[in-house]
Amino acid sequence: MSTDSKFVQSCVFSIPGPIEVTDEVLFANAHPSMSHMSPDFARVFGDCIRMTRQLLYSEDAQPFLIAGSGTLGWDQVSANLVEPGENALVLHSGYFADSFADCLQTYGANVDQIKAEIGGAVKEADIESALQAKKYKIVTVTHVDTSTAVLSDIKAIANVVKRVSPDTLVVVDAVCSVASEEIQMDAWGIDVVLTASQKGLGTPPGLSILVASQKAVQVFENRSTPVTTYYGSWKKWLPVMKAYENNTAAYFATPPVNLIYAFHASLTQIMQGSVSLEQRFKLHKEVSRRVKKAAEEIGFKGVPLSEDVQANGMSALYFPDGFTASDIVPRLLKKDVVVAGGLHASIKDKYFRIGHMGVSVVDPSRGDIDKVISAVKESLAEAKVSKQ
Amino acid sequence: MSTDSKFVQSCVFSIPGPIEVTDEVLFANAHPSMSHMSPDFARVFGDCIRMTRQLLYSEDAQPFLIAGSGTLGWDQVSANLVEPGENALVLHSGYFADSFADCLQTYGANVDQIKAEIGGAVKEADIESALQAKKYKIVTVTHVDTSTAVLSDIKAIANVVKRVSPDTLVVVDAVCSVASEEIQMDAWGIDVVLTASQKGLGTPPGLSILVASQKAVQVFENRSTPVTTYYGSWKKWLPVMKAYENNTAAYFATPPVNLIYAFHASLTQIMQGSVSLEQRFKLHKEVSRRVKKAAEEIGFKGVPLSEDVQANGMSALYFPDGFTASDIVPRLLKKDVVVAGGLHASIKDKYFRIGHMGVSVVDPSRGDIDKVISAVKESLAEAKVSKQ
Repeated sequence: MSTDSKFVQSCVFSIPGPIEVTDEVLFANAHPSMSHMSPDFARVFGDCIRMTRQLLYSEDAQPFLIAGSGTLGWDQVSANLVEPGENALVLHSGYFADSFADCLQTYGANVDQIKAEIGGAVKEADIESALQAKKYKIVTVTHVDTSTAVLSDIKAIANVVKRVSPDTLVVVDAVCSVASEEIQMDAWGIDVVLTASQKGLGTPPGLSILVASQKAVQVFENRSTPVTTYYGSWKKWLPVMKAYENNTAAYFATPPVNLIYAFHASLTQIMQGSVSLEQRFKLHKEVSRRVKKAAEEIGFKGVPLSEDVQANGMSALYFPDGFTASDIVPRLLKKDVVVAGGLHASIKDKYFRIGHMGVSVVDPSRGDIDKVISAVKESLAEAKVSKQ
Repeated sequence: MSTDSKFVQSCVFSIPGPIEVTDEVLFANAHPSMSHMSPDFARVFGDCIRMTRQLLYSEDAQPFLIAGSGTLGWDQVSANLVEPGENALVLHSGYFADSFADCLQTYGANVDQIKAEIGGAVKEADIESALQAKKYKIVTVTHVDTSTAVLSDIKAIANVVKRVSPDTLVVVDAVCSVASEEIQMDAWGIDVVLTASQKGLGTPPGLSILVASQKAVQVFENRSTPVTTYYGSWKKWLPVMKAYENNTAAYFATPPVNLIYAFHASLTQIMQGSVSLEQRFKLHKEVSRRVKKAAEEIGFKGVPLSEDVQANGMSALYFPDGFTASDIVPRLLKKDVVVAGGLHASIKDKYFRIGHMGVSVVDPSRGDIDKVISAVKESLAEAKVSKQ
């Protein structure tokens, strides 16, 4: 590891996850070994469950915190909420909808997709038509698709679903939005928010975080067929989560103890730090506007087709005409700014992605965002010179 | 966390997982954020794959390192290697066989169990009879059942399977044995070793580690029905593991980056440290004998029925007649020694469990084992006095 230690110390790590995390979170991740059955750990786990619920503005939704990546949330939804042969409607605003659909099909769902054009979100009128034509057990929407930086209006979508097909569960893939975009589960009528630790939540990767409304829990409990996963089964995890929320340990599988300490440290900063949750969302909007404006002024163009579908925790930017990833990304890296390449297959080489979430946004004294903006400007200028 | 910081600093943490980990491992777990797609991380991941294979004395078996607990290994076996309606034979030497059977049934296997008496391992003659009576796709055995501290002779069992039913895959649940008990995958003909990070491997919990023989990979590739899990699908993970082994990043789900750094640090100590792997196994045997002898001399009795089925990385000890957990365990805790209670339902309150794995065993300068033995002796003496 010695070869990269200089690199990681001095760089601005600006990909859309894993994001930069605070020293307090890293310190917590190095917590000495603790028993997952100890009262001390149970209290910390219980705090995480309570704070996760609060973060989503819910009174009574049920969090599930399980060792795994964000992907495990798809399995949980597909295997606990949808029974084989039932219908699922997947709203497609980028790469991750294809994968969610693939997961649903693995567990036996009949999947229909509504695909937005690249850079767009699915239109409410199209959702309404689909819901009128067929009965769906769930509708899934990617809140921010990390491949396109497209933000879907989950409040409006939930509203359409409640109006047209009130029994249908609204499932939000919020891996790239929790803690950088506002989500009001109860007020908006969202049934599932699934996410992961390494993006807006500012914790190292390895924790699957899913929050289910009581309505979703009821649907799970009223299944007529057995749950089709073992590791992701809510039958196994629900009693464990309830026990930990009562500050009592319970066992199904060993939780990722250190990561729970790290998550606790980050949630504490998010929920009880000097920047309020509302202010956090506001800062993400401001920084997002600043990054996008600076990039557009020098010829980059956002992948999202209009301002109302632009994510606030990341930007996906087409290179200016005549430039490609190889002109820009290596130059950014030389300036110690780490960004992500394209991910959406159809436009992979035409754009790149910048993450602006978490501590880089809420702590301007780090200078992360300024450094990224300057580096993008300088890199393009250098690329122009090299082509002359 | 302030309330428990004194506690965790000074105690001897002696449960059968999570175990004490070295400072180097904790430091690696606090690695600053890194991209899972970076060449630096890919090299570290690749090293972990190679060292995991070496640890199991295999030339060509395929490791899978996935965010999750050890339980995820059961899902991987059940959903990738067994097709719905196929037969699985589960050898039962404690609590964990029931769970593995439950997992196999969740994914559609027909499960038969051979149950040993409590404290015993399943007899080879019984395995032979079962294999002669019915065709099984897999036989599963818990190498060390953490609920009983019973060690099964996986070399002999694999031998029986190869002789009687050579197509049947030998699957070893080695969560509580890898790096504390010898496992020679190739020489003994083991097809799957599944484990987790937090026991003999001396890493915080949250990483599912599974190694499949090329024969098992072939069985997976020749399936006639689709894989029945998404998150645990080898179809998704096999190309990712192959890419990382070539020191190239590939994406299915975000790996637990920090935990991979921690695992790398621990594997490096295990495979390249001053104590050889062979010496490590020898030390586990010596320490195990010492702990068991000391406990038996003062009236504790091992749960395993005979010496040949005693695990070397942990002890399960019946309390002396007239004493219960409440006489001993709280007294141990007052002496800063953390042990685990009973887990096997039939004998839950009659015994307790001590872990002696990893750094506590290979670094005698820590004094962990001496402290545990003294504390057990003192606690029993005090309990006797209090009953007079």
